[in-house]
Amino acid sequence: MNLACLDLEGVLVPEIWIRVAETTGLEELRLTTRDIADYDELMRHRLRILDTHGIRLSQIQEVIAAMGPMPGAAGFLDWLRARFQVVILSDTFYEFAMPLMAQLGYPTLLCHRLQVHDDRITGYTLRQPDSKRAAVRAFHHLNYRVVATGDSYNDVAMLAEADAGILFRPPSNVVAEFPRFGVVTDYDGLRDAFAHALG
Amino acid sequence: MNLACLDLEGVLVPEIWIRVAETTGLEELRLTTRDIADYDELMRHRLRILDTHGIRLSQIQEVIAAMGPMPGAAGFLDWLRARFQVVILSDTFYEFAMPLMAQLGYPTLLCHRLQVHDDRITGYTLRQPDSKRAAVRAFHHLNYRVVATGDSYNDVAMLAEADAGILFRPPSNVVAEFPRFGVVTDYDGLRDAFAHALG
Repeated sequence: MNLACLDLEGVLVPEIWIRVAETTGLEELRLTTRDIADYDELMRHRLRILDTHGIRLSQIQEVIAAMGPMPGAAGFLDWLRARFQVVILSDTFYEFAMPLMAQLGYPTLLCHRLQVHDDRITGYTLRQPDSKRAAVRAFHHLNYRVVATGDSYNDVAMLAEADAGILFRPPSNVVAEFPRFGVVTDYDGLRDAFAHALG
Repeated sequence: MNLACLDLEGVLVPEIWIRVAETTGLEELRLTTRDIADYDELMRHRLRILDTHGIRLSQIQEVIAAMGPMPGAAGFLDWLRARFQVVILSDTFYEFAMPLMAQLGYPTLLCHRLQVHDDRITGYTLRQPDSKRAAVRAFHHLNYRVVATGDSYNDVAMLAEADAGILFRPPSNVVAEFPRFGVVTDYDGLRDAFAHALG
């Protein structure tokens, strides 16, 4: 029995922090897990910048709500949900992602949570360390065969733990470092890769 | 972080086997986990009857596709998905349930699989023993707080393993045997119970 684990940003929706950087003009927010592999280091960097510039949660939520899924993402997800049980594994936060989930028909999302006081983001709670890998392991314990796709450093443990791992539009440094994973660059390719993984 | 585990039959859709019994006129197919707590015993009984009467998978699938969710179920599920990550835990089979999942917007479903040859159901594969309890445990390992609802004997382990368990329209023998679980009888009551469990 087959289950699909999908990364969110870069696979179904644009990179949230890049969009926030573009909208606020704060260039230092452009870095993602594509650039800094250590997630906690990256998040502390982001929260410091937000605090320095007085950016509130509600401002970020407005940017995200207006952003929407990537063109073709909803159609791909609908195709996939008819063929696999789908769970989205993301290092984003529920406070950011839920408006996007509404636009995608509320697929199940496992991610993290922000700490917020008076609309100020004061910190974040990682649900657990190495959470994407842990989720794939949990589905293995439930006797699922897992096919996973993601685009960046923080997906590699998930792809390695899965029975089949697919890189979607990865940056060239990720392709070079992890040649064992197949690479696809559009949703048609992703459909083919998942159909092939079904056997 | 909160996750909702829902039984399928009796909570979101009618009891599949009862509907098959009504449509085929085979009264012996009316028994459910409400009547026989041992699931394997119940399934061997059902498959024997289908085989004796030459009932094919495609005939059963037609009955199920026409059946649809219970009135109010889709609205309740949409309400719930905006507030909880939702996973459906069922002892049915993907071959039966997927047309119903399409009508409910493809929530994530963890269930079992039939063995089929030439449209004849020859057996079934349980994904794992005690699968509903195992799934709640897996989500606990992923650091989720789990609120669960179900209607019958095969849900009790799931309700007991969850952080909060709600019986939905249970038969009186289940209520009498398991007085520790709250009981609700309609979707408004179920909304209230889940909202209360959110804290």
